[in-house]
Amino acid sequence: MISIHPLTGLAEICEGDDLAMLLRDALGRAGLWPLQKGDILVVTQKILSKAEGRMVDLTEVEPGEQALELAETTRKDPRLVELVLRESSAIVRAVPHILITRHRLGHVMANGGIDRSNIGPGGAERALLLPVDPDGSAAALSHDLASEGAAPAVVISDSFGRPWRHGVVGVAIGAAGLPALVDRRGEEDRDGRRLEVTQIALADQIATAAALITGEGAESIPAVLMRGMRLPPGDAPAATLVRPIEEDLFR
Amino acid sequence: MISIHPLTGLAEICEGDDLAMLLRDALGRAGLWPLQKGDILVVTQKILSKAEGRMVDLTEVEPGEQALELAETTRKDPRLVELVLRESSAIVRAVPHILITRHRLGHVMANGGIDRSNIGPGGAERALLLPVDPDGSAAALSHDLASEGAAPAVVISDSFGRPWRHGVVGVAIGAAGLPALVDRRGEEDRDGRRLEVTQIALADQIATAAALITGEGAESIPAVLMRGMRLPPGDAPAATLVRPIEEDLFR
Repeated sequence: MISIHPLTGLAEICEGDDLAMLLRDALGRAGLWPLQKGDILVVTQKILSKAEGRMVDLTEVEPGEQALELAETTRKDPRLVELVLRESSAIVRAVPHILITRHRLGHVMANGGIDRSNIGPGGAERALLLPVDPDGSAAALSHDLASEGAAPAVVISDSFGRPWRHGVVGVAIGAAGLPALVDRRGEEDRDGRRLEVTQIALADQIATAAALITGEGAESIPAVLMRGMRLPPGDAPAATLVRPIEEDLFR
Repeated sequence: MISIHPLTGLAEICEGDDLAMLLRDALGRAGLWPLQKGDILVVTQKILSKAEGRMVDLTEVEPGEQALELAETTRKDPRLVELVLRESSAIVRAVPHILITRHRLGHVMANGGIDRSNIGPGGAERALLLPVDPDGSAAALSHDLASEGAAPAVVISDSFGRPWRHGVVGVAIGAAGLPALVDRRGEEDRDGRRLEVTQIALADQIATAAALITGEGAESIPAVLMRGMRLPPGDAPAATLVRPIEEDLFR
């Protein structure tokens, strides 16, 4: 059995907050401390970005020429578009109300992953960028939360839309202490046939499961603990989930 | 807290098997019967398809001209390609070793959702098609498993690859007793700003969470029970998750 536990009671996170300490306290309040072997901590991008001071004051953003053009096309705030461009390596789609890019971290997502919901008072004039290095931050959190030899796996979650399907789902933008991508090439099924599905996006699946609790909007819960999973061996970051654009199978 | 419980001990499923009865027995063995309000049963496509008799003997499939051409392009078994074409409404991508189509159910997926792993003895010459009407089958299972007034939500799960990301994740191809797509338009965040994420693919997220247990390959578990989730009101099938090709945002 796998159990997914909400971690509540974290105050509004501010730049410089010790997220590991705050999460340890929340785990304690939830009766989940000390951690057990195989525990997986899922932390939403939002609180990690806030702790890293990734909040931007839009009134201080000077949109460049490309941002002004794209803002016209997409009918978005030119200052937001400027930030998206700074965060992105390529534009995937720009039409009215839609701006999809490849983020510098490799993820293809809307608005460069920039968040304007639940970013605290003054939200209208502020925007929250993705963490600088979510895989590195996941590894640091895993290290800081290690207790009695058991370092938890850590997944940094966000939510993305998808081609061909309505609605967003949770995805992993950072991971440590587990194989974000599980490669099963060469394994066989019960009948001795080679598996057709050879790679499983484990960290994405964990982030999605966590999203059943972290949710979105008013009742947003910033982190969860997942307990009881038999994790496969290995340690690979969320970066391994990114498929290079030239390898993309769907176009 | 959400808990996800494996349902084990189901024998190899055959055409005509009473899946509801077999699942009820498995729930009993797991100490999960009677069901509780809010319980969600996730059933893998594989056992539903087997119970529905969707197994095809490849030796009886006569590939047509288009199948022979596509088989050459994709280097796949022409009989399998013929089945894919019969199951699909449009071809999305056909290159060596890759055949992605829009299934008649609307899902964009590889090989028409046709399964050749863990389909039992003689697998090499057999293929398993998707259920005829997964939403309808989910509703029927929900009805048949209702006890003491509590009908479980039911999700029929499969696993898809995705553009731009490596690895497969669980997705919902059937759903009943819950809103497969949760529409939050008009809701506000903690700071009173309108939510940017307005639709959540709840049934996909449930199928993905279940995939952490159902897995793939040798140790495959055919169904899970999810308990403890606060389901939003409403009842919408998995068909509502399908985005019409002309509405697709990513191309």
